[in-house]
Amino acid sequence: MATTQNTITTDTICAISTPHGTGGIAVARISGPQAIQNAGKIWQGTNLATAQSHSAHLGTILDTDNRPLDQGIATIYRSPRSYTGEDTVELSVHGSLWIQRELLNTLCHAGCRIAEPGEFTRRAFSNRRLSLTQAEAVADMIASSSRAAHRIAINHLRGNFTQRLNQLHQNLLQLASLIELELDFSEEEVEFASRQQLHQLATELKHELQHLSDSYRTGAAIKQGIPVAIIGATNAGKSSLLNTLVGDQRAIVSDIHGTTRDIVEDSAEIGDYLFRFLDTAGLRHTTDTIEQIGIERSLQAAHSARIILLVADATTRPDPQAIDTARNSPDAHIILVANKTDLPRADTAPLLHTARELSAPLVSLSAATGAGIDTLRRALVSAIESEGDTGSELLVTNARQAQALQRAADSTARVISGLETGLSGDFIAQDLRQTMHYLSEVSGEITTPDILQNIFTRFCIGK
Amino acid sequence: MATTQNTITTDTICAISTPHGTGGIAVARISGPQAIQNAGKIWQGTNLATAQSHSAHLGTILDTDNRPLDQGIATIYRSPRSYTGEDTVELSVHGSLWIQRELLNTLCHAGCRIAEPGEFTRRAFSNRRLSLTQAEAVADMIASSSRAAHRIAINHLRGNFTQRLNQLHQNLLQLASLIELELDFSEEEVEFASRQQLHQLATELKHELQHLSDSYRTGAAIKQGIPVAIIGATNAGKSSLLNTLVGDQRAIVSDIHGTTRDIVEDSAEIGDYLFRFLDTAGLRHTTDTIEQIGIERSLQAAHSARIILLVADATTRPDPQAIDTARNSPDAHIILVANKTDLPRADTAPLLHTARELSAPLVSLSAATGAGIDTLRRALVSAIESEGDTGSELLVTNARQAQALQRAADSTARVISGLETGLSGDFIAQDLRQTMHYLSEVSGEITTPDILQNIFTRFCIGK
Repeated sequence: MATTQNTITTDTICAISTPHGTGGIAVARISGPQAIQNAGKIWQGTNLATAQSHSAHLGTILDTDNRPLDQGIATIYRSPRSYTGEDTVELSVHGSLWIQRELLNTLCHAGCRIAEPGEFTRRAFSNRRLSLTQAEAVADMIASSSRAAHRIAINHLRGNFTQRLNQLHQNLLQLASLIELELDFSEEEVEFASRQQLHQLATELKHELQHLSDSYRTGAAIKQGIPVAIIGATNAGKSSLLNTLVGDQRAIVSDIHGTTRDIVEDSAEIGDYLFRFLDTAGLRHTTDTIEQIGIERSLQAAHSARIILLVADATTRPDPQAIDTARNSPDAHIILVANKTDLPRADTAPLLHTARELSAPLVSLSAATGAGIDTLRRALVSAIESEGDTGSELLVTNARQAQALQRAADSTARVISGLETGLSGDFIAQDLRQTMHYLSEVSGEITTPDILQNIFTRFCIGK
Repeated sequence: MATTQNTITTDTICAISTPHGTGGIAVARISGPQAIQNAGKIWQGTNLATAQSHSAHLGTILDTDNRPLDQGIATIYRSPRSYTGEDTVELSVHGSLWIQRELLNTLCHAGCRIAEPGEFTRRAFSNRRLSLTQAEAVADMIASSSRAAHRIAINHLRGNFTQRLNQLHQNLLQLASLIELELDFSEEEVEFASRQQLHQLATELKHELQHLSDSYRTGAAIKQGIPVAIIGATNAGKSSLLNTLVGDQRAIVSDIHGTTRDIVEDSAEIGDYLFRFLDTAGLRHTTDTIEQIGIERSLQAAHSARIILLVADATTRPDPQAIDTARNSPDAHIILVANKTDLPRADTAPLLHTARELSAPLVSLSAATGAGIDTLRRALVSAIESEGDTGSELLVTNARQAQALQRAADSTARVISGLETGLSGDFIAQDLRQTMHYLSEVSGEITTPDILQNIFTRFCIGK
């Protein structure tokens, strides 16, 4: 990958930017100093070399033997008014896989090379068209699979998070300048800023940094889908509940797109959120080794889940093992589901007691008839929204950012403790510089090739 | 579907035109009288209403709550300078499925409706931007999966076939005018055109129509992939031969696209052609019912195949049943494969006799080591190219066109037989009009709603 480092500004790259597959149209993106010239070599129509920026042209694309490959549209974007900041050409062709492949071959023959994953966005970052957090938000936009995930991504993309980081950076600079004033004049025993004032500023800063770092837990769940473990005794109706929750959703998605298979198995968009349902083996005492492994996995799922749906059969007594499992997952929200309420023998009274004991809402429903399912959907949304952060537009969804923010918070904690123990200004200033360093890592003011490589290789090709 | 008929020129339609899935970018196409106005309702940026045709604009797309859905590019095409001939807007957004779905929702909210399959191309046909054969070629372009299939499609798309049809139509008109002159002046016993000259013109015309209609057999095989049955005794090495033929190809495709799974199982692009390999059950006498069904299917595959790879184990005697099967498939090209030539006991001499008897080329190879596979590839290409038509740029790939061409040829045959039997000019003129009618059906000068519906519903959505 060393080549990328050396040649990033001289190579002209190309890739298919539209999803992989066959469709009405596919778009190849070409970016780099030779983009317009290389596209011109395979083009019959308007002279692209003299075409204005942001203009679209109908013409014929030629293959390596100068025979017509397709009739398509070339759209010209001139540096710096393009996604990458470089000269860019987008070629829109008929979306056959064969044509897409042949077009890339032809472009390579004309002097381009195939782009690495995320290389267009990396160039946009290098050319200061996007901050690093905005570049990361591009990947989040493409991966967004719910309204909430999308809301976070577009806020980051629009630079709201970058602005917040800049503001924090300003606050840190103010703090640092106060400390350094104190240092400069320390021999004169002038105290420009009271230590109490510094303490208050640092405490506010630490609180905000910690809050942002902590928001990763909710942010990541929203981005990746909120894990919901469905646990309960065997035959409590866990699988039919899952089918009812997921089945409707599938139908909605398939109405619009004509296909269902892209949806991750057992996921459903409910309200603004994507929930990932983990159906688990029924919990019961068993000597069967295979079944024991299944139950072990159920318990693991419960522990990693954000929400536990504790499903009970309302026609029988509550199952103590399932209740214990829920009780031993203190990090998860518990929702108690009384299933099979359509049956005449159903009695939810004993479960009211369990719900009170677990401080969990009780939802009575019938997975078979669908009655009460909407109440469960609302309960799922309430559970995640009770975390408070979900409404925030500046959730962190990225482990790298969360870690750097945590380091910045820890470093600010050292500033605070320094102020409290009367540490000399030199040491406090050093901790402050460290905090600013971590904050610059979040925003991408400070990067290393490794960090960049790590970020951009996770992108899809063509973006 | 009656609505389409009535509202085709008043509705504004929208669809995602890029392949279904997640990718760097996705493109929504909007076409119709309100395209620019509707796009403007969800757009923050340049005023699209006053934007020039063929201009691209960066801006923000708003959702139904007027909140930012994405930052994207809107490209404006003003009637009649667009694919459909109507005002058209293409919105390029981040390629998340969620964003694509939400964008369509938002566009419908702004007054568009979701396009039916092929509706953009149907409008292009209705607005005389494309002939019917060109419209059909659009679908062939998108489906093209080999150089040969693509070559036919792009020739049709570029109007070469339409031109040829027009020329045939001119020839028919000439013939008709000669006959009608004869009719007009029949009482004066003036013979403007000798019947011999008419006979010659009609014969040439019939030959050409028949030739085009017959080219469908080759054209369809090229378009859909040339069916190749691999037959032979059990353990002759049929499956390893298939893996060797297909495996390499897969690797090539996957190098470029990063995925293999879109390739139809057991297909390979060899030379300019896509071959569809049908691995069959080994042929042997058996009393096992299930195996008998398998062998029955092998025989069927051999009969429907264009090429039969008759695989023999060069270390044993040739298998008479497999040879019989090949001999009884007179429509297929046979290639005799002597496999396992890497083994010391291998002896291809007995197979030379079989090859001569079947008039089939003999290819010695080892599926295990790969030696000789390239010779087999060349033999496959030679077999299909021996049909002569493959080099032609005007192959018919479409059953509807082939049938109408056949009807036109049959009708011309009646003209010829009328001329030969001295039928009166009235009857001959009637057959000629019938021929012109069928030819107009091919080109789409004459269509019915049913024919159009049948053609365009096979398109993908968004084209």
